[in-house]
Amino acid sequence: MLPGMKHDLRALVFDVFGTVVDWYGSIAAEVARLGLPTDGGRFALDWRAGYQPAMQQVRSGALPWTNIDGLHRRILDRVLAARGIALPEAEVQHLNRVWHRLDPWPDSAAGLALLKKRFVLATLSNGNVSLLVDLVRHGGLPFDTVFSAELFGHYKPDPEVYLGAAKLLDLAPAQVLMVAAHPSDLRASAQCGLRTAYVHRPLERGPGGALEPYADGEFDFMAGDFVELAEMLEG
Amino acid sequence: MLPGMKHDLRALVFDVFGTVVDWYGSIAAEVARLGLPTDGGRFALDWRAGYQPAMQQVRSGALPWTNIDGLHRRILDRVLAARGIALPEAEVQHLNRVWHRLDPWPDSAAGLALLKKRFVLATLSNGNVSLLVDLVRHGGLPFDTVFSAELFGHYKPDPEVYLGAAKLLDLAPAQVLMVAAHPSDLRASAQCGLRTAYVHRPLERGPGGALEPYADGEFDFMAGDFVELAEMLEG
Repeated sequence: MLPGMKHDLRALVFDVFGTVVDWYGSIAAEVARLGLPTDGGRFALDWRAGYQPAMQQVRSGALPWTNIDGLHRRILDRVLAARGIALPEAEVQHLNRVWHRLDPWPDSAAGLALLKKRFVLATLSNGNVSLLVDLVRHGGLPFDTVFSAELFGHYKPDPEVYLGAAKLLDLAPAQVLMVAAHPSDLRASAQCGLRTAYVHRPLERGPGGALEPYADGEFDFMAGDFVELAEMLEG
Repeated sequence: MLPGMKHDLRALVFDVFGTVVDWYGSIAAEVARLGLPTDGGRFALDWRAGYQPAMQQVRSGALPWTNIDGLHRRILDRVLAARGIALPEAEVQHLNRVWHRLDPWPDSAAGLALLKKRFVLATLSNGNVSLLVDLVRHGGLPFDTVFSAELFGHYKPDPEVYLGAAKLLDLAPAQVLMVAAHPSDLRASAQCGLRTAYVHRPLERGPGGALEPYADGEFDFMAGDFVELAEMLEG
């Protein structure tokens, strides 16, 4: 969106893993804390790498609807087995719930507080509702409400998720801004008529980790963090 | 629940109209502000009186799923017509949305802030999601998330609503406390296995208005307001 261009935004919906919270750093720290005999960053990347294929199994019908806690657990069992790490069941369960305890990026809470003055703020994540509630409590994140793929029985980037959020907010898609660090998520939301804001999270996959490519001018807003996004939307 | 009796409560879910916010006083004040030629309190009571029959029409299938904004509008048109009041469409629309601007009871925000330290807090209302989001923003009410009948396609007291909330929170029904000023709502939630807290709102229907009767010892907790409830649950 060009500077000075008019918009009628009323609500912002946020991708969460990588956009609001730092899954890589939080999981690497947890693995170190537990003293597991493996590289924590590599462990985080392998766990996350199973995420898209697992959701695709749900989308294709190969798996019945399974929430993210359930998908994370299926992947975790494989990631541990591949390293020959055996843990008591209670410890595996605790580790699986590290996704409920991920730390926000340093600007997240402050930026959301600024944005909340003017806009309705909701999550729009593939994480299940209970996970998202735990994350907003853990991080003190001032969302107005939690929207999850679980409410729609579909995972992003299925259109049901983006259109479902606009409908629950009683808004036209163009009145809703999707905020994400992932071009693929933003493209899918734009196809549903939502506005898009890309937020740069260069450390999402750790130091030197690759980010999804995108083209110049592909998104309505481009921001370095949530505080900068709030300044852009003041206008 | 007897003093000192053990519980494993993790989350509190709240009825909203009458329990968290004062619909009678807020609507009466709006009617006075608009200068409508009618008694504001009587107007509020008549509007609210159409609420249960309208939801019953949805439950019975006589009406397809219609959210509370839509049901409120159907009733409002009748309440205005019965008084011979004709307003421009934009003013009727604005008046219908007074339900998005209801003021909380004086203890609501402070009590919720105390309860939030220990428990997950969610609305559990027949109000639609966008209405509830507007109410929590208007009243500065620190809920963790908004649950609405709209998410389940059923209105309270249908069991799908109470059980659906526990499921989204990934909790057993007995770990969830339903908080309401209405015995009928609490009884339906208890039948689903939830714990119950009655909060006394003597002015819900205005000065001298009748309250639903209940029996001694019918509910797990009985509180005068949310701050008192927080003190009871400290134990």
